[in-house]
Amino acid sequence: MAWNPCFEAAFRPRAVAVAGASRDPGIRFDFVAVLQQAGFAGNIYPVNPKADGSKINGLKVYPDLASIPEPVDLVIVSVPSPAVPTVLEDCITANITNVHIFTAGFKETGQENGIELERRIQEIADKGGLCVVGPNCMGLHIPAARVTTWPAVAFTESGSVAMLSQSGGHAGQFVRLSSQLGVGLSKVVSYGNASVLDGIDFLEYLATDSETQIICMYMEGTRDGGKLTAMVREINKHKPVIVWKGGLTEWGSRAVFSHTGSLGGEKQVWDAFYRQTGAIRADSVEELVDLAIAFRYLAPPSGRRAALMGAGGGNSVAGADVCAREGLELPLLRTRTLEELKKIIPSDGTFIRNPLDIGVVIWDINLLLQALEPVAADPVIDTVIFSQFVGVPPRLRQTLDVDAQREFAENQAKTVMDRLIEFAKGNSHQKPLIVVLQEGAGGAAPGQIEGIQQKLLREGIPAYRSLERASRALSRFLQYHEFHKRAGEG
Amino acid sequence: MAWNPCFEAAFRPRAVAVAGASRDPGIRFDFVAVLQQAGFAGNIYPVNPKADGSKINGLKVYPDLASIPEPVDLVIVSVPSPAVPTVLEDCITANITNVHIFTAGFKETGQENGIELERRIQEIADKGGLCVVGPNCMGLHIPAARVTTWPAVAFTESGSVAMLSQSGGHAGQFVRLSSQLGVGLSKVVSYGNASVLDGIDFLEYLATDSETQIICMYMEGTRDGGKLTAMVREINKHKPVIVWKGGLTEWGSRAVFSHTGSLGGEKQVWDAFYRQTGAIRADSVEELVDLAIAFRYLAPPSGRRAALMGAGGGNSVAGADVCAREGLELPLLRTRTLEELKKIIPSDGTFIRNPLDIGVVIWDINLLLQALEPVAADPVIDTVIFSQFVGVPPRLRQTLDVDAQREFAENQAKTVMDRLIEFAKGNSHQKPLIVVLQEGAGGAAPGQIEGIQQKLLREGIPAYRSLERASRALSRFLQYHEFHKRAGEG
Repeated sequence: MAWNPCFEAAFRPRAVAVAGASRDPGIRFDFVAVLQQAGFAGNIYPVNPKADGSKINGLKVYPDLASIPEPVDLVIVSVPSPAVPTVLEDCITANITNVHIFTAGFKETGQENGIELERRIQEIADKGGLCVVGPNCMGLHIPAARVTTWPAVAFTESGSVAMLSQSGGHAGQFVRLSSQLGVGLSKVVSYGNASVLDGIDFLEYLATDSETQIICMYMEGTRDGGKLTAMVREINKHKPVIVWKGGLTEWGSRAVFSHTGSLGGEKQVWDAFYRQTGAIRADSVEELVDLAIAFRYLAPPSGRRAALMGAGGGNSVAGADVCAREGLELPLLRTRTLEELKKIIPSDGTFIRNPLDIGVVIWDINLLLQALEPVAADPVIDTVIFSQFVGVPPRLRQTLDVDAQREFAENQAKTVMDRLIEFAKGNSHQKPLIVVLQEGAGGAAPGQIEGIQQKLLREGIPAYRSLERASRALSRFLQYHEFHKRAGEG
Repeated sequence: MAWNPCFEAAFRPRAVAVAGASRDPGIRFDFVAVLQQAGFAGNIYPVNPKADGSKINGLKVYPDLASIPEPVDLVIVSVPSPAVPTVLEDCITANITNVHIFTAGFKETGQENGIELERRIQEIADKGGLCVVGPNCMGLHIPAARVTTWPAVAFTESGSVAMLSQSGGHAGQFVRLSSQLGVGLSKVVSYGNASVLDGIDFLEYLATDSETQIICMYMEGTRDGGKLTAMVREINKHKPVIVWKGGLTEWGSRAVFSHTGSLGGEKQVWDAFYRQTGAIRADSVEELVDLAIAFRYLAPPSGRRAALMGAGGGNSVAGADVCAREGLELPLLRTRTLEELKKIIPSDGTFIRNPLDIGVVIWDINLLLQALEPVAADPVIDTVIFSQFVGVPPRLRQTLDVDAQREFAENQAKTVMDRLIEFAKGNSHQKPLIVVLQEGAGGAAPGQIEGIQQKLLREGIPAYRSLERASRALSRFLQYHEFHKRAGEG
């Protein structure tokens, strides 16, 4: 179907019904409690003909959707699969349009009765003009509306990153990782078998959604590859579309069919999709999040020339190899830059080059921080990658007790963060800065590295946990801008 | 030089001298304290002409090596670079053969005086028959002798894995990661600029060292590629040689020269090296450790056919893609296996296939554990990959307080470990088992996943933190056995 504007109400619902609510949900999620714990401010209506008149979590249970005393913007369906068609008929009777079917057991089973059940869903949706998300999916996660189907999710403030996913597991991991890092989300839709609303429909909505600036997708297949390609090509000009296509390998493709019943399609077809649309490619949940961070926080650099700061000797070699494999360049610094660096960094055991290797004094973070300014000023450099060991230098671990070590680590982390934030704010060279937080020789307090990463991201500085992830995200970010530059020139 | 048997004394020293020992070592490591803290049982002799007669850490300081009252098996040199030749001359006078030069500032600087100083070192070593490790390196780490130059390292019991490294940083990371996981080490040698003893010399020693069964190497270059190739080809037949060559890219190659002054050589040359020797390729410290684990704990499987157990829907697709990219196969299970699995795993929301997807009940670890037996019994399967989410299911996080969550996580971890260990021990099908410990929806206690990994490794079960790492290690382990099978047939 084409995008139905009615569904927009589901993204800001005033009232939500849970069909199949139960005081003993067994292995199924308890969606009534999930919504309550998420702080959903609208009314929640548990529906269960067998529990009519009782209460679930303090809320009155209704026997059917038609008995609910106000218009319902979204029904979450978690009844057993054979009962789903009846619930959909009830939706039509009750004049309800928007439905999320959590229940599995349809086309994805490969069994005739599952396939037939899914056909029934499509027929009823067609007849009643229902907007159906699913079946076999987690549905919606909308921080601004405090609507979610993920139990125990940490809500952060809402933001500009949307995600569409054919896998509830991947969508859940995406929500968890983004929320942990404080990357604000606009809308997350897990749409499973896509029996009625497809990824294409949600894309159509997100294209004009003012809250969404970056779109992440996990896809297993689509019913209209040509339309998807045309849409992504258009949307991607204004809002980056980051696409993880699952099942691009022989064994993955077979698993796709088991999962959502999609026909995965040929690798060549999807290669052409990426080539034609300029969509940014990802291959895991972590990469989706890494790329969302790059697009959210990085200003477009003018090219691929990076300065890598802070590695030791072997680390410089490894870092240069990693950058090169991702297609970044590490040009020689200008003579003037090298001279200024020599005033800051002692020559003994260091290498004032690119990568800038401060060698045995690798733990003297102040040297690196002072070197930021001349490196960023060098006109041969487009992006500065600042790689820092977090933890306690072995020498100090030898002499300080655990409390003193922790104090050292905290003080150092504070110095680094303050100085990086100050630098990023006063960055007169307009050079994008990427921070890599490497685990050092140990001694960092549990969660310390994650805490630094969160803080830097909150200040708008893209921070990653490894150079591999940072340079891959940077390279794909650059590819996006190169694609549009070529398209503009072509 | 050829391998000098005299150097063997340095691997089991009775007496070690530290030339350049100081009460205020500044940015340099305090090797006297490092040896004391490591529990080295022999005598330690601090040497410093300026501190003659004083004490360092309770030990009498000697003015020169010749004054030391007993034979010295190893001298650690950390004097400034211009003073190194004098110390080497002293070694000859004092009849000492084995020297580790920690000091940097030689060939790797690219400066004429550094290059000249290194030439002097080679001349003196030649003249006096000195065995020199370095300069510009961390030297030796030998758990069995409680000799190390790495401050604050956690000594575990010694074991059968050796490591040779041209980078002290990489060697240190390797020691730290292996020790954390309880992978026992025989000898670690960080040999830096390799001015006298080269990787080839240490390889020659390790080839016949009865304590060493697996050899890991980080190399930036070698002075005799032909000899290296010939040696590795021979050694690799009996002891797997895992080689990380740094600087295989344009930018990495330039960084190599800055680091150890090695000429990195062409990528094609090293591709030929791997092809001709069958050496196992690694690209990071983590991969070296991952591969050491595979070779240490995996029995050779009969082929590339794996069963992947335990993923959810989207995770099955992602997991199948990961396995396929690493060249593993995920064949269809036999009908009989599927029937037995159907007796164990409820059909609702699960997929009894390969990958085995236990879907919404993904947290019911007992289902997976019960499924181990029939999957391992299937003759189409060569290796079982058991992937488990560690943490607290979202549903429980919703209802349990933090203490109860932690108790759940601990109990579940114990069940899993006990059952996996029991299975591995009674594994009548002789199928290799690999465990992947995935971070789940959160709720695992800090360090919990690492603790499970350590315990499984101690029981001889290879356990990894991601499927990417597990399947890459398995695939390269298989490549090794395929290489030797072909070589045996050819």
